[in-house]
Amino acid sequence: MINYEAILSEIAEEIVPYLSLGKVADYIPALANADLNQFAMSITLFDGTTYNIGDFNTRFSIQSISKVFTFTKSLNIHSAELYNRVGKEPSGNPFNSLVQLEYEKGKPRNPFINAGAIVITDTLISHYKSTEATFENTLNFIQSIAHNKTIDFDSEVYESEYKTSFRNLALANLMKSFGNLDNSVDDVVKTYLKHCSIAMSTKELSRAMLFLANHGTDPISQQNFITPSQAKRINALMLTCGHYDASGEFAFYVGLPGKSGVGGGIVAVVPNMMSIAVFSPGLNSWGNSLAGTHALQLFTSKSGLSIF
Amino acid sequence: MINYEAILSEIAEEIVPYLSLGKVADYIPALANADLNQFAMSITLFDGTTYNIGDFNTRFSIQSISKVFTFTKSLNIHSAELYNRVGKEPSGNPFNSLVQLEYEKGKPRNPFINAGAIVITDTLISHYKSTEATFENTLNFIQSIAHNKTIDFDSEVYESEYKTSFRNLALANLMKSFGNLDNSVDDVVKTYLKHCSIAMSTKELSRAMLFLANHGTDPISQQNFITPSQAKRINALMLTCGHYDASGEFAFYVGLPGKSGVGGGIVAVVPNMMSIAVFSPGLNSWGNSLAGTHALQLFTSKSGLSIF
Amino acid sequence: MINYEAILSEIAEEIVPYLSLGKVADYIPALANADLNQFAMSITLFDGTTYNIGDFNTRFSIQSISKVFTFTKSLNIHSAELYNRVGKEPSGNPFNSLVQLEYEKGKPRNPFINAGAIVITDTLISHYKSTEATFENTLNFIQSIAHNKTIDFDSEVYESEYKTSFRNLALANLMKSFGNLDNSVDDVVKTYLKHCSIAMSTKELSRAMLFLANHGTDPISQQNFITPSQAKRINALMLTCGHYDASGEFAFYVGLPGKSGVGGGIVAVVPNMMSIAVFSPGLNSWGNSLAGTHALQLFTSKSGLSIF
Amino acid sequence: MINYEAILSEIAEEIVPYLSLGKVADYIPALANADLNQFAMSITLFDGTTYNIGDFNTRFSIQSISKVFTFTKSLNIHSAELYNRVGKEPSGNPFNSLVQLEYEKGKPRNPFINAGAIVITDTLISHYKSTEATFENTLNFIQSIAHNKTIDFDSEVYESEYKTSFRNLALANLMKSFGNLDNSVDDVVKTYLKHCSIAMSTKELSRAMLFLANHGTDPISQQNFITPSQAKRINALMLTCGHYDASGEFAFYVGLPGKSGVGGGIVAVVPNMMSIAVFSPGLNSWGNSLAGTHALQLFTSKSGLSIF
Repeated sequence: MINYEAILSEIAEEIVPYLSLGKVADYIPALANADLNQFAMSITLFDGTTYNIGDFNTRFSIQSISKVFTFTKSLNIHSAELYNRVGKEPSGNPFNSLVQLEYEKGKPRNPFINAGAIVITDTLISHYKSTEATFENTLNFIQSIAHNKTIDFDSEVYESEYKTSFRNLALANLMKSFGNLDNSVDDVVKTYLKHCSIAMSTKELSRAMLFLANHGTDPISQQNFITPSQAKRINALMLTCGHYDASGEFAFYVGLPGKSGVGGGIVAVVPNMMSIAVFSPGLNSWGNSLAGTHALQLFTSKSGLSIF
Repeated sequence: MINYEAILSEIAEEIVPYLSLGKVADYIPALANADLNQFAMSITLFDGTTYNIGDFNTRFSIQSISKVFTFTKSLNIHSAELYNRVGKEPSGNPFNSLVQLEYEKGKPRNPFINAGAIVITDTLISHYKSTEATFENTLNFIQSIAHNKTIDFDSEVYESEYKTSFRNLALANLMKSFGNLDNSVDDVVKTYLKHCSIAMSTKELSRAMLFLANHGTDPISQQNFITPSQAKRINALMLTCGHYDASGEFAFYVGLPGKSGVGGGIVAVVPNMMSIAVFSPGLNSWGNSLAGTHALQLFTSKSGLSIF
Repeated sequence: MINYEAILSEIAEEIVPYLSLGKVADYIPALANADLNQFAMSITLFDGTTYNIGDFNTRFSIQSISKVFTFTKSLNIHSAELYNRVGKEPSGNPFNSLVQLEYEKGKPRNPFINAGAIVITDTLISHYKSTEATFENTLNFIQSIAHNKTIDFDSEVYESEYKTSFRNLALANLMKSFGNLDNSVDDVVKTYLKHCSIAMSTKELSRAMLFLANHGTDPISQQNFITPSQAKRINALMLTCGHYDASGEFAFYVGLPGKSGVGGGIVAVVPNMMSIAVFSPGLNSWGNSLAGTHALQLFTSKSGLSIF
Repeated sequence: MINYEAILSEIAEEIVPYLSLGKVADYIPALANADLNQFAMSITLFDGTTYNIGDFNTRFSIQSISKVFTFTKSLNIHSAELYNRVGKEPSGNPFNSLVQLEYEKGKPRNPFINAGAIVITDTLISHYKSTEATFENTLNFIQSIAHNKTIDFDSEVYESEYKTSFRNLALANLMKSFGNLDNSVDDVVKTYLKHCSIAMSTKELSRAMLFLANHGTDPISQQNFITPSQAKRINALMLTCGHYDASGEFAFYVGLPGKSGVGGGIVAVVPNMMSIAVFSPGLNSWGNSLAGTHALQLFTSKSGLSIF
């Protein structure tokens, strides 16, 4: 029997020296003032039991974690056809690189780098016919997997991010030039950024991810969201591509499928057992939460849990 | 004594089989319908004598030839400081590539690839304080070196190009993300495209370039536009970078400093002697006029003129 | 209860149309004549039960599968210090690419691309002091994990491969120029190729890999080869990097840590349960066995086994 | 009338502060001990008059300047067919980069980067049937254009360079893997290095280059070495590619076709007038003589000579 409570307590203590080693995502003005001492970690088991430590009710900007939700939604709608427009390989490059995108004629390597998530947003806008309906449906989906109707986006973060989103606009324009964007660049980037600015706590995030630990079906409510095969593939993609050019590092040290965001959050799943969320705004050089990554590494070491 | 008249007549005849081998720049809708049979060539000597053949009064979109004029203007204003923001090396890459720009942190290799000319336009807007004043001053400068007040831009080409200018917007946004663009992406790209859509005939272009063959001073009017050292450097840049990733090819076969545009025009100078302009809308795989390049090669072979 | 016998029989039948779709590794003369109709698959469970189908006693050249064995050995000797000389990230590039290696100053992305395995071989030669002792120890190690003293290398394959090994020599020389190779280029490449030319059957390979499915300890003999943490990391690396620039694809469709070789073999592990080996010489465009990959995909679909 | 004597005297004085700013080519042991204070400059006019300053009789390793001579020889033998195996475009990359060579399937961008010169050496070996005959013919050719039978190679430099020539071996092996090398890698690299280790003084070099300033014919002896068209093309290639990724810089500041070597030498031609050689072992960051480049820049400024 694993004593989760004791493990989380130990982690909360051991993580302290790591909190100040990271840097906030200062290229997004609204995130630049985050308090580096913040830390939270939450676990949700299949029977609904949750273990939480730190600021687990504090909401933060989920940023790239939203890519898991939009990809799930788009895969559910378009299924395998989606792979004509986005690949499934690790990029080996930073999250916002244009180099590979130019060489590979506008087809992003995977849905979890920025270019890939922008294409995914484009497929949702084409499906829902408007940017408003797209955002609404995405938000509803997140609310429903998190079983929480109060989740919303942070308009200040959104506005702030849009003003400095030149890299994303470069990526989107490049894909548009290759014909891999159906809607207007501005519509797609704005909607993508709105998804990124959705705010959730670690408690909410760990609840929301549970269906991915259970082959697509929420083990508590028994609600089915996607097929087992799709769930398996999303997990595989999180493992190989969930942390940009530090995905190998994460697989190596943590050993769980996971996805990080520059807001400081990371989610991970232990297949057939639980989902985990962690938060700490200081980032390492790859743009992943430094203390968050370390906390997950401590968790898998202490619990012996890993997919390998 | 070189018999220019005879040489141009021979070229006009020998060039016929090459006219249909090129392809129009079909990614710019307004250029896609150009007549592949069009051909014109003009020479202007230092004493004002001109030799012309073909459609030498037909105006066409000068496109990237405008980069020579805006660079001249900006160099005249900012002199060597300009090289903090744009390099002077051949890129070895296509005119609209983003790869090198990302590796080299937003500083374009030279002012004659698209990214470079976009930065140059940005420096002009910063100097003239508005996009209107920038365009007006650029047009006035071109009118004055061409000694022709009727030269103007083609609004249809401009509108058409702006609608599909995703690559240029990607380049500009990427440079903006690196802090190498002071004005708004949209302002800069629109002004850049307006410069590109200026329409001139080969006769007008060969007249306009004469100051670059004469160390910065128009040999006819004796008006001085730039210093001898600046003229030398513009010519050096045209030789090494004037034809994108076919610059070596052009130096090799033609052996003159020159600059091409996707509208089908090419200008070149024979230092201390003359300037030349040629036009034919069919492009080779590098985006340079196919018959135009060949006509210049025939010209240097027949006349024995070359800088080497 | 999974009926492995039935599953293997089904696979052997369903795989037939895929056998002829691949291409043999024709750049290695001795492999160019392989019979495309060959197919074998073997499973070894923790209690020693084995299930086999096809040519499961036929030995073939393990090629890059040897990288798992040499890396295990070197990790055992040098532990984490090894990561100063080789990374742990997917490369996103073909197995023999030099591009990334030049940009990253001679440090290979991971031990499972050619450059990485060449460095690993170099670390072994430095440890064992000679190429002979290195090869002998590597072979002994493989014999001991496979519990089979008759395993040996195929000198014809080795000779043939050495004669055309220009890419590997280019990689080794490039690393040598960056100071990431301590021994002579020729010694290292020859020893590396000798490891690649070791010949094993699927039955032997599935037996040999069992310790990696059981945290570093052979579940049958209880012999310990590496620490649980090292075993976890080797599995993580196989998942993210085991199939070159198709590693994401393999994780996505198969969902198991695995490693392929251009000889047509693939090994994979189901943690805590079994190890699997498959063989079919026809390769897909990434250099991985086409039918082999498909057989593993059928296996995980039919058995429901996956780490995700 | 240009007073060359006075100009050279001024340069010798003004260059002093630049001598110590460069670094010797320390990756070649035998060059690592060069005296940074060495400086020499020589001019040879069409009537045979020479002007010399500094250590103009001191021989140094010509290194990459040999590429001009081997290319001339190979062009003379194989003429335009040569361009099937080597391009004529600036590379935009360092002299020993493998990146572009891999992307472009083993065909070097131009004959003046290392890969290009290695291919050129291969074409000579194929023609002369042996490495000995190749070197002998190359040396004879250099002796004949320099009108000096005492010129020879420096075996110490050659041996020293061969021992550390891993980059060149990487380039050669990569090209061999693409089928762009007919002879053995070792034979080709050794012969290439032997050409590089030929030692000449600035006085000898300026004499040797004279035929390239005069359309292929030595203006003193009237001996013809290549066609006017070939001479023009060699000059064009020197201008666009003669200084690796600083070729644009050289064209920009010096404005003459030229070629540098890491031994510290640079040669340049003023078409129809003279050839120039300069020597100073301290290199800039691109591997070109720092003081040598500056001396040539001073020369063109003071004399007003330039091709532009």
